Amino acid sequence: MAPVTRLVLDVLKPHDPGVVPFTARLGDVEGIDAATATVVEVDERVKTLRVTLAGEDLDLGTIREEVEDLSASVHSIDQVSCGSRTVEDPLLGE
Amino acid sequence: MAPVTRLVLDVLKPHDPGVVPFTARLGDVEGIDAATATVVEVDERVKTLRVTLAGEDLDLGTIREEVEDLSASVHSIDQVSCGSRTVEDPLLGE
Amino acid sequence: MAPVTRLVLDVLKPHDPGVVPFTARLGDVEGIDAATATVVEVDERVKTLRVTLAGEDLDLGTIREEVEDLSASVHSIDQVSCGSRTVEDPLLGE
Amino acid sequence: MAPVTRLVLDVLKPHDPGVVPFTARLGDVEGIDAATATVVEVDERVKTLRVTLAGEDLDLGTIREEVEDLSASVHSIDQVSCGSRTVEDPLLGE
Amino acid sequence: MAPVTRLVLDVLKPHDPGVVPFTARLGDVEGIDAATATVVEVDERVKTLRVTLAGEDLDLGTIREEVEDLSASVHSIDQVSCGSRTVEDPLLGE
Amino acid sequence: MAPVTRLVLDVLKPHDPGVVPFTARLGDVEGIDAATATVVEVDERVKTLRVTLAGEDLDLGTIREEVEDLSASVHSIDQVSCGSRTVEDPLLGE
Amino acid sequence: MAPVTRLVLDVLKPHDPGVVPFTARLGDVEGIDAATATVVEVDERVKTLRVTLAGEDLDLGTIREEVEDLSASVHSIDQVSCGSRTVEDPLLGE
Repeated sequence: MAPVTRLVLDVLKPHDPGVVPFTARLGDVEGIDAATATVVEVDERVKTLRVTLAGEDLDLGTIREEVEDLSASVHSIDQVSCGSRTVEDPLLGE
Repeated sequence: MAPVTRLVLDVLKPHDPGVVPFTARLGDVEGIDAATATVVEVDERVKTLRVTLAGEDLDLGTIREEVEDLSASVHSIDQVSCGSRTVEDPLLGE
Repeated sequence: MAPVTRLVLDVLKPHDPGVVPFTARLGDVEGIDAATATVVEVDERVKTLRVTLAGEDLDLGTIREEVEDLSASVHSIDQVSCGSRTVEDPLLGE
Repeated sequence: MAPVTRLVLDVLKPHDPGVVPFTARLGDVEGIDAATATVVEVDERVKTLRVTLAGEDLDLGTIREEVEDLSASVHSIDQVSCGSRTVEDPLLGE
Repeated sequence: MAPVTRLVLDVLKPHDPGVVPFTARLGDVEGIDAATATVVEVDERVKTLRVTLAGEDLDLGTIREEVEDLSASVHSIDQVSCGSRTVEDPLLGE
Repeated sequence: MAPVTRLVLDVLKPHDPGVVPFTARLGDVEGIDAATATVVEVDERVKTLRVTLAGEDLDLGTIREEVEDLSASVHSIDQVSCGSRTVEDPLLGE
Repeated sequence: MAPVTRLVLDVLKPHDPGVVPFTARLGDVEGIDAATATVVEVDERVKTLRVTLAGEDLDLGTIREEVEDLSASVHSIDQVSCGSRTVEDPLLGE
């Protein structure tokens, strides 16, 4: 299978741990070079984050385990990129 | 015929396999250098993905077979690019 | 006359041949370096495509013949560029 | 007077000659390096084109003559650029 | 005082002289490297132009004189840039 | 944990100290290379700032202390980036 | 404190001095490399300008003095950037 180079995930996270240690821990998962988490919704008990992860060979299983270790859950997957380079969707935003 | 260098497809996919293995398998098809799948709609039984594929000589037949092997189907083709380089549509977004 | 370097055409195409072989055949016309076809409307019998063609000296006559050979027709011409370089319209999108 | 380097014109053109030969002929006028014509309106008898012309020293008189020779007319001038380089309007689109 | 490097002016101009000679004459004023005039409104007797002028040391007095010599008037000043480089407004369009 | 390279914070700040010394002090915190504060709301007693901080290894604890030392408070965290490079969210703005 | 590298100010200015000498004088303040003033509102007695100033070490006190010397006043501060480089707000425009 082609290596996954970028993942955009919807993550539900309790307020603890905070967004900063949560993202820093994800950024530390093997194969992840960069992680950006944007807070898109804040409810009483959970925050919804859109998390973008980039690397040379991302493993969803390992990422999901780390997310769950951090008391959060992957609610859905918004975008997946893989291959020897990253192609952007030319119709995004149309 | 000129080689196809980029394809944007609308794909209907059951929830299993997931978007990540689905895209990684597509990215592994001969001639595909990069694949990006964006989830555009989620229904009870299927997900609608917009899948962008790039390479030097894409073969729709092989891609369609792989998609169907993965229990999904190509619902429609949104954009096709071919030739020795890729030209963008200057009126897109107008 | 100055050489035509980019053409944007509105094309009506029956469902057969498909968009991929249709675009690949157009990309093979003499003088065409790149072809991108975006599906903009799907009706019962025809698809409307916006087709962008780029090259060093495009010939509309030859392109139209090829389109008609493929059972389709050039419905209208949206944009034409010609000369030793391509100038973009600075007011597009205003 | 400073040399005119880019002109954006509104042109009314009968259906004959077509947009392609019309633009190719304009692109052949002395001093024009590039011409891009976008069809912005189609009426029963005429098409309205927005025509962008670029070169090192454009002459409106010569361009207007050529336009009229082609049975069309310059309806209005939308933008004029001149000088030793081209400056874009920073407030365009505001 | 710091040298003015770019000016955006609102200019009211009678129909004569035309936009092309008007802009070409402005482009010829000492210190002006580039001039772009966009027609933003056409009334019975006057045209409103937004005129962008760029150079290394623009002098509004000289520009205003030239504008008035051409039977037009500077209605207002929309933007002024000066200094050893040009900084763009990061909040423009917000 | 992966080093944090960019933080976007919502900060509530009393009118004193002003936005300029406030941002300059934040920019002086160890590990911060650049700070940009945009005023997004002004109330009778407080200003709401969106503060973007960039560096090679940002520490939220130290930043929060500095913010509180300046009589302000971190109201929420909008975005966190970490890793050996910064990845942008491809779906931002969709 | 980290050096301030860019400031965006809301300035209220009487009609005299004009926007051009006003901006040119600001551009001359020590430490300012570039100044851009955009007129955002015109009232009977005052103009509201959004003024962007860039340099290697801007001093608000000196700038405010110069503004007041010019019979104008800093109405509010919209954005402040400081540090050894300038970071843009990734959420601007969201």
